[in-house]
Amino acid sequence: MLATKHQNILDNAVKANHERRFYSQYPEHPKAYGEEAPAKGAANFQAMLQQPFDQLLQTGSGSRVGEEVSPYTLEPLGITYPSTPVNELVGKASGAARQWANTPVTNRADVLTDSLERIKSLFFEIAYATMHTTGQSFMMSFQASGPHANDRALESIAMGYEELQRFPAEQSWEKPMGKTSLQLHKTFKAVPKGIGLVIGCSTFPVWNSLPGIYADLVTGNPVIVKPHPKAVLPIALAIAAIQQVLQENGFDPHLCQLAADSSEQPITKALCEHPDVRLIDYTGGSAFGNYVETLQGKTVFTEKAGVNSVILDSVQDIDAVMQNLAFAVSLYSGQMCTAPQNFFIPEQGVNTAAGMLSFNEVAQKLKDAIAALVNNPKMGAGTLGAVQNDATLRRAQDAATLGGKVLLQGGPVVNEEFSNARVCSPTLLEVSSADHNIYEQELFGPVILLIKTKDTDHSIQLAKQMAQQHGAITCGAYTTDPVVKEKIAEEMNSVFTPVSFNFTGFIWVNQHAAFSDFHVTGGNPAGNASFTNQEFIIKRFVWVGNREVVGS
Amino acid sequence: MLATKHQNILDNAVKANHERRFYSQYPEHPKAYGEEAPAKGAANFQAMLQQPFDQLLQTGSGSRVGEEVSPYTLEPLGITYPSTPVNELVGKASGAARQWANTPVTNRADVLTDSLERIKSLFFEIAYATMHTTGQSFMMSFQASGPHANDRALESIAMGYEELQRFPAEQSWEKPMGKTSLQLHKTFKAVPKGIGLVIGCSTFPVWNSLPGIYADLVTGNPVIVKPHPKAVLPIALAIAAIQQVLQENGFDPHLCQLAADSSEQPITKALCEHPDVRLIDYTGGSAFGNYVETLQGKTVFTEKAGVNSVILDSVQDIDAVMQNLAFAVSLYSGQMCTAPQNFFIPEQGVNTAAGMLSFNEVAQKLKDAIAALVNNPKMGAGTLGAVQNDATLRRAQDAATLGGKVLLQGGPVVNEEFSNARVCSPTLLEVSSADHNIYEQELFGPVILLIKTKDTDHSIQLAKQMAQQHGAITCGAYTTDPVVKEKIAEEMNSVFTPVSFNFTGFIWVNQHAAFSDFHVTGGNPAGNASFTNQEFIIKRFVWVGNREVVGS
Repeated sequence: MLATKHQNILDNAVKANHERRFYSQYPEHPKAYGEEAPAKGAANFQAMLQQPFDQLLQTGSGSRVGEEVSPYTLEPLGITYPSTPVNELVGKASGAARQWANTPVTNRADVLTDSLERIKSLFFEIAYATMHTTGQSFMMSFQASGPHANDRALESIAMGYEELQRFPAEQSWEKPMGKTSLQLHKTFKAVPKGIGLVIGCSTFPVWNSLPGIYADLVTGNPVIVKPHPKAVLPIALAIAAIQQVLQENGFDPHLCQLAADSSEQPITKALCEHPDVRLIDYTGGSAFGNYVETLQGKTVFTEKAGVNSVILDSVQDIDAVMQNLAFAVSLYSGQMCTAPQNFFIPEQGVNTAAGMLSFNEVAQKLKDAIAALVNNPKMGAGTLGAVQNDATLRRAQDAATLGGKVLLQGGPVVNEEFSNARVCSPTLLEVSSADHNIYEQELFGPVILLIKTKDTDHSIQLAKQMAQQHGAITCGAYTTDPVVKEKIAEEMNSVFTPVSFNFTGFIWVNQHAAFSDFHVTGGNPAGNASFTNQEFIIKRFVWVGNREVVGS
Repeated sequence: MLATKHQNILDNAVKANHERRFYSQYPEHPKAYGEEAPAKGAANFQAMLQQPFDQLLQTGSGSRVGEEVSPYTLEPLGITYPSTPVNELVGKASGAARQWANTPVTNRADVLTDSLERIKSLFFEIAYATMHTTGQSFMMSFQASGPHANDRALESIAMGYEELQRFPAEQSWEKPMGKTSLQLHKTFKAVPKGIGLVIGCSTFPVWNSLPGIYADLVTGNPVIVKPHPKAVLPIALAIAAIQQVLQENGFDPHLCQLAADSSEQPITKALCEHPDVRLIDYTGGSAFGNYVETLQGKTVFTEKAGVNSVILDSVQDIDAVMQNLAFAVSLYSGQMCTAPQNFFIPEQGVNTAAGMLSFNEVAQKLKDAIAALVNNPKMGAGTLGAVQNDATLRRAQDAATLGGKVLLQGGPVVNEEFSNARVCSPTLLEVSSADHNIYEQELFGPVILLIKTKDTDHSIQLAKQMAQQHGAITCGAYTTDPVVKEKIAEEMNSVFTPVSFNFTGFIWVNQHAAFSDFHVTGGNPAGNASFTNQEFIIKRFVWVGNREVVGS
């Protein structure tokens, strides 16, 4: 048993969770991980291609599945994974449950932190796996599936470590009764709710899954991980590492199982509806997410789709703002759940330090900034990454048919390393505030709408309405007026949407930092859960107290 | 503004919430409240009879309603309450919301604690009101609706006071970027979810309602209180006190409104389904509770019905055990949600310090203990109180028709003070473990079943199954064997049911102490919420963070 091996990491993480200053356990720069790690990771990734994935410790019957295709090469990865029947997965999870439930949270947290350290040794393998399944650039793949995901996982572990120790394991209770007293011995247990299911998505297979996996595990529940069939390898590597560390510490590796399936024979609903599955973490489209949310008798955590807004009121330096926004909309081709889509701009334009700019001038500035970025040979391809799948690509290519005025038609951008890469630069459409039918849709991928409003109040009203009705994970706002700023904050916060004000330079609205930013608030239709507030942890177990008369 | 008037009370309550030792802010003995309070309270209660209730500060159109009947005199109380249309209630709550939401939690907690002190001055009025609506004895009415309810309300306030200060209101975030750094100013707000609705029951109109009322208020939400039409006065008195304290401190009294209705024209569903009602606390039957739990877009806290078990394995002193159990089943005629109903006894009997007692001997002991208690002129009527309504009375009177063998037929017991009181002593039936159809029902009121099992393992299995399928709020267990004790704890806790071991003397399984015992775990069908774990508080608001580039 590791006992207190990682006490220092846990203590720092608990403190960081509370303080919400900048904090990171896992440095985000690849260079922090040694000179040999990149080449070793690349070689290991190459060696996994066209092979059965054999690093898992889980057992089970069933055939093998695998249908991943690189968005960069458009070639199948050719890796196969075990496809275990649902009842077997659930049975093995149940079999592993009791020992883990009866392990003190301090030990569980220690073993789990150890597994993060093991995952750290695979950051480059996971980065290449992420790149060639999601289409993220190498750098984003490395950061999002590596250090950033591990930091968010540690956030879950630390929150669980703290919450499960909130009440004493035992306490003596003595009630004065005149000259005598009544004495009870009480015990308090955080009883795990049951088997957890984490359903992954094709764009962020690790970052969106690790928090739920670790939240289930730290609170004493076994977890079954059902990845998107097109993005299995990144999370399979993490699961294998977790299984190894569990087994090395005397626990059943089936506490964390991979449940791979195929697009043709999906098992997600069967897993969701299995009576022993009590916790579900879901990332993905709203239709399935809404189904998951209505399942009775399950505790459900969702991140679904949202439509994120930018409110442009007034700025200091319009060029700095437009560079920032051009990057925000181009980054991973708008496939981040935090990417802005709807830009609300008053018809009279935007005030700047250099005077008033008309709506058209603002639109031109944004168009120019996007074009400059995507056509920059050193920046364009790396910022855009690749489009994960053909459906998203086709929707982006056909964006002009949505209506409105095409300000910028997206199209192919050369990726020098991967000539077949599925790349499409952003399309920019201008629509009027009356075009609800256009801007009330989530246009996942590289499509941005400029919406002409009567004034900033009107912009706020529409952005608020969008968040309330369709959900929002982020809102960018630019204003130099403190009264307007206060109003934007009040109105957007009232629909449980966080606001990022006046972002320029090396910070973008898309980015949420572990230990500080809550990712998704859980209060609007974009999702019912948040990385990582307490609800994300404490809904996974139940406090139960026993009492006994002293001396009985 | 009261600022820090009650800092000491709040600090002690926060500490007590964590430690879970014995703690009480409001002494449970009536004598603690001064010599004049009882007579004054009685006189004030008498003066309210046959009058319109005029202490509320809320305004609204609508007629007046009132249909309360004393279970002791069977006479109508003749008190009427305003019956305000649903849209008006919701509109006034909305109008009051923003000022309260923008008031710091420290101030809210202070004002709310002040309102508990105001309620304290009405403990005797509320006691008589409770007695003559619920049928509780005077002492239970005083304690449950007075100090015990106030303590549980303070628990909610303290939990909110702590949780809403968990994260800093603002923080500077500085990310190192090589030679420079990136600085953001962040703010964190706990945004209230919206209007709360608290739906009361006819047996514990104050104790079961105050925790939800104060949980809504401390987290910044307005609350509408919909009492059972047969038990309005006790909670109306508390609401009037809250309204007065709110107004005296410059807040809108409509933050806490009474929503009285009639049995003929109920408004509960209309309130539940109003889109602006976002939080619902419900106490009552399972059918309506299940409906409330399936409402989409609402955060729901329920306490529904359960079937509580007692597992008899082995005891030291059988007479002490039977006296304790006789009191537990007779107290308020089995109308407590915590009252035991199903007694699982092995067919080979129960081991005692004085040797083995057969099943029949154990049954006889329980029968004798109940008969001795209810027929004791100093104890019987006071312990039983009165049956709240005729339907419960009829069900208890007809219990023999359920099946099984009648060991003790309940019937009228003389109440010397109230000759018309609706009193019925417990009926004791013996059934076999095969009689699922009988013992799987909640037999609300004075009906107890002795169930003959194969052995204690069988008893545990059935009690566990009952809790899992039908819910349980308590489980009493008697065993002198540490291995059996561990097994009972493990099995019952696994279905989220707390166990009270070997209770004899002045402590009964029915009682849950504020600041120490979690009332209902929230993990089985008896209810999805708990007084007061953190979920009860933090699901009522959403953490939202804003960020701004420093110097922008």
